[in-house]
Amino acid sequence: MEPKDRSSQESTVKIKYYTFEEFVEVVRSFHGFEAVGVLIGGFMVDEAYRHLPQGRLFDALCETPKCLPDAVQLLTPCTLGNGWLSVVNVGRYALTLYDKETGVGVRVFIDPAKLEQWPEIRAWFFKLKTKKEQDLARLLYEAKTAGASICGTQLVRVPHRLRDKKHRGQFAICPQCKESYPFDDGLVCLACSGEEMYEQVQPDITGEQVLTEISTSYQVL
Amino acid sequence: MEPKDRSSQESTVKIKYYTFEEFVEVVRSFHGFEAVGVLIGGFMVDEAYRHLPQGRLFDALCETPKCLPDAVQLLTPCTLGNGWLSVVNVGRYALTLYDKETGVGVRVFIDPAKLEQWPEIRAWFFKLKTKKEQDLARLLYEAKTAGASICGTQLVRVPHRLRDKKHRGQFAICPQCKESYPFDDGLVCLACSGEEMYEQVQPDITGEQVLTEISTSYQVL
Repeated sequence: MEPKDRSSQESTVKIKYYTFEEFVEVVRSFHGFEAVGVLIGGFMVDEAYRHLPQGRLFDALCETPKCLPDAVQLLTPCTLGNGWLSVVNVGRYALTLYDKETGVGVRVFIDPAKLEQWPEIRAWFFKLKTKKEQDLARLLYEAKTAGASICGTQLVRVPHRLRDKKHRGQFAICPQCKESYPFDDGLVCLACSGEEMYEQVQPDITGEQVLTEISTSYQVL
Repeated sequence: MEPKDRSSQESTVKIKYYTFEEFVEVVRSFHGFEAVGVLIGGFMVDEAYRHLPQGRLFDALCETPKCLPDAVQLLTPCTLGNGWLSVVNVGRYALTLYDKETGVGVRVFIDPAKLEQWPEIRAWFFKLKTKKEQDLARLLYEAKTAGASICGTQLVRVPHRLRDKKHRGQFAICPQCKESYPFDDGLVCLACSGEEMYEQVQPDITGEQVLTEISTSYQVL
């Protein structure tokens, strides 16, 4: 009986429009592996949506660059490249979905006080075990079973300074690197006016040369 | 004959494992719309891979947060959340795929000197037209036809300071917000020690309350 029970249980745990198992696959494909941080992040995004009016678009803010941004990018229209997701790294495991006009939104965070009954999640969250010591099966089981019950939610207002998009003005050609850059940045681009971004920047080269040079570097370094 | 010719041409333009048309759909689904910046970014990622040894993993660096990171996230194993993609915003339309051990890699950038024969790409790139004035069909046609021919490539070495991952040590509970944070950040978390991240942070609330409060905010603001 157990497999059947389990499979019927599997189908009831949802992360937005995915079952938990489907989301594990989506995460594996995008993120490279079934990171428990992205899975829990999925429950957090789902939880935020449960508190928000349907049929509206929200911007997203993550308080850490670790894992959470991928849950947001997989489950909301917000991505890094379209500018609707931003990251302010204050090291807290929290995300906010908010209305871009008013800044009002829902913040979801992992509440350490709620982790007592989930020892494997707690050990992962507080880095009490090395990756090798982790019991991945147990961790995934706890994540799936706990869902968003380990989270707290808050109504927040994201201030203007964190939500106003910088609109770049005109573009110019940097006299130094000959590439285009936002003219507001100054008379040369930020890469040329600051510290050098790259060591050993070579002139344009052919593919064969790159291959050779990279192979050489591999041997040398 | 034209449609047939066109369709046979369509199937030959590839962006990694996608045809151009397939990639347009992938971009639309992830990024929200067929942003030409992500499509050109796709050709740039593809171009970088052509110069790199196969079967190795590379980290990615984007020099702008606009569009390019999404091309990287869709075509490489690198995402924001898994830490293999980083963004150093110097406002240049360029990306680098590099070996994480040596920093050696290939940088691909849009070369303004190569845009002369592509007036619609040039107008988009230098923001010479408003979104309304843009001829989207023409822009997509030029992007597809030009491919990576508008790009330059360089062999570069990404310096340690841009490629070394910060490994966070122990986590602690912030005495102020009661959430966990990297203890190296200080005696309270960065959110509590700096400017307040949110205005009007409320105590935990129920979904109904959030809905009501958000609706009220919508009316009031």
